[in-house]
Amino acid sequence: MVNSVGIVGLGLIGGSLARRLVQRQIEIVAWNHNNRPYAAARDEGINCVDSLEQLAAARPQVLFLCNPLKAMSEILGCLAPILDREATVLSDVGSVKAMVRQQVEDAGLGDCYVGAHPMAGNESSGFTASDPTLYDGALWALTVNANTDYRRFIDVATVITENVENRIIVLDDATHDRAAAMISHAPHAVSTALINQLTESSERNIAAALAAGAWRDMTRVALTDPERTRAMIEEDAENVEVLLRDLAVRLTSFADELHRSDDAGLTRFFEQGQPFRNYKASEHTTTDTADAQLKRAGRRIIDVPESEWRSVFLDSARRGERIIRFIQPWRVEVETRFEI
Amino acid sequence: MVNSVGIVGLGLIGGSLARRLVQRQIEIVAWNHNNRPYAAARDEGINCVDSLEQLAAARPQVLFLCNPLKAMSEILGCLAPILDREATVLSDVGSVKAMVRQQVEDAGLGDCYVGAHPMAGNESSGFTASDPTLYDGALWALTVNANTDYRRFIDVATVITENVENRIIVLDDATHDRAAAMISHAPHAVSTALINQLTESSERNIAAALAAGAWRDMTRVALTDPERTRAMIEEDAENVEVLLRDLAVRLTSFADELHRSDDAGLTRFFEQGQPFRNYKASEHTTTDTADAQLKRAGRRIIDVPESEWRSVFLDSARRGERIIRFIQPWRVEVETRFEI
Repeated sequence: MVNSVGIVGLGLIGGSLARRLVQRQIEIVAWNHNNRPYAAARDEGINCVDSLEQLAAARPQVLFLCNPLKAMSEILGCLAPILDREATVLSDVGSVKAMVRQQVEDAGLGDCYVGAHPMAGNESSGFTASDPTLYDGALWALTVNANTDYRRFIDVATVITENVENRIIVLDDATHDRAAAMISHAPHAVSTALINQLTESSERNIAAALAAGAWRDMTRVALTDPERTRAMIEEDAENVEVLLRDLAVRLTSFADELHRSDDAGLTRFFEQGQPFRNYKASEHTTTDTADAQLKRAGRRIIDVPESEWRSVFLDSARRGERIIRFIQPWRVEVETRFEI
Repeated sequence: MVNSVGIVGLGLIGGSLARRLVQRQIEIVAWNHNNRPYAAARDEGINCVDSLEQLAAARPQVLFLCNPLKAMSEILGCLAPILDREATVLSDVGSVKAMVRQQVEDAGLGDCYVGAHPMAGNESSGFTASDPTLYDGALWALTVNANTDYRRFIDVATVITENVENRIIVLDDATHDRAAAMISHAPHAVSTALINQLTESSERNIAAALAAGAWRDMTRVALTDPERTRAMIEEDAENVEVLLRDLAVRLTSFADELHRSDDAGLTRFFEQGQPFRNYKASEHTTTDTADAQLKRAGRRIIDVPESEWRSVFLDSARRGERIIRFIQPWRVEVETRFEI
């Protein structure tokens, strides 16, 4: 049972998490790089402190770093000499995991770290935009490695399943970052390339005049702050590179098939993603409400062997399962989602 | 002044157009390949006839072919011997223009044809989904060539500006089809390639679990009927091929830049589309309501020289202008949109 949680960074993600946990009677101690959100945060029952020293001294059982990634090294450097490593498990909410773990290890804090990445957020920012319901129905990826202490992992995992009331999947950093590149980082680059293509065309105003829903959806993420997008892509550069090269090959092959009116090739191209279409269609029919979804999704119990807990959890995630709760430390209940 | 309009095909697009024109006191005569929508259409004041012969005999001043593209050749073949070519201007609403004109010319009806493509629609279909407001604020592309009769062009154009109350731009078929490939047909292929990439990955369930807004938006169009998407792409294959090869080069170059941490190259990639971001941002601030937009957008008058009306209209479209109304046959008022 975790009763106290520390938060570094009272922005959209950290602020919403803090407020959600306060609602669930968890004691929250928070520090922000400036005290602008403190009055509003204190109104919400969050104990705001003026320094990382005071935060560390409060000895929260789990400390979530919700600061921007670019501030991570500096904050870890400050925390390293003052954190009570026995009392506090270190976690974060960063959208890339290998890079954050490297920074944590560089600061000498690897032993007390469990990576975390909640699939929550929107396009606003700051504590004023925070909202405890931001986490409604969210899934978290927790990342672990061969050195991860299972007890510390359980502390972070149960905060999420019991207190935040979310589901989790457990991955290694590399698998997380590859998957994040596939569904977010590489598509951001593709979206940007599409608006570049239009902008360079002498017919750009005509094309923009004809643009409708497909264009709007395919280019929405290219309209967000390009500095932030660039940083996100560079933090996961190796995976994005591989995926974009693969995508370029797919598009060139398809262009070849169009060129020679290759019926079999074109048929393959349009059939290949059918399992994903089916997955989305079945998801749709059962997610009218989160409650209806819950009732329809199957559940099962997994006994987790102490010797190979990481691979058992990874295999479960590969099957599309999500951990609902820890019945005992080595026994979990999972929701069996629709597999693609 | 046009008082009577014919409609072939009472689906979403044709049905909505018919209903909108009935509201504006235009006499509508319509034919559909089956009579299923006739009862509902008659309730809306649409005169439904049982054959293309009866439709042609009604001698509508403008006849819009709103049938699926795959039925176009057959319908044109039926109309060719029975259409009163002096009385009726032939138009359509197809999403590709070069191919339709070819079919119209093959049927020997090229002389009385003016191409049209309304930027309107949604993911539903059939007369039951039709709605006159589908055309609210819609832009139409009209396509013309060296043989287009200006009087017939004016008939179609004024139905749209005065009766449908929409804006138009005037293009040649090739320019239209290139622009449509850029903002719709090629992006559909890109979206499909993204779901293919995920589906082929052994980590597909993990990737799908982490998927959020970016993935949802980038793959929405890949979830629609792949048969229809394939047909749309194949009808505009040459343009799609060129654009996908260009996009593959862009993605590969960007992957190279990521690989060698090429700061200048990466900066260029993220800056290139900035004019489009600025265009969307300024559009956003002035489109709170269609009315507010109208007030903010500038207007000007263009005198159209008889000898080169097509190039004058095309240049206007290239500048991002849209025709609001014909003051006289050779004098138009245009809205000067934000140029990219």
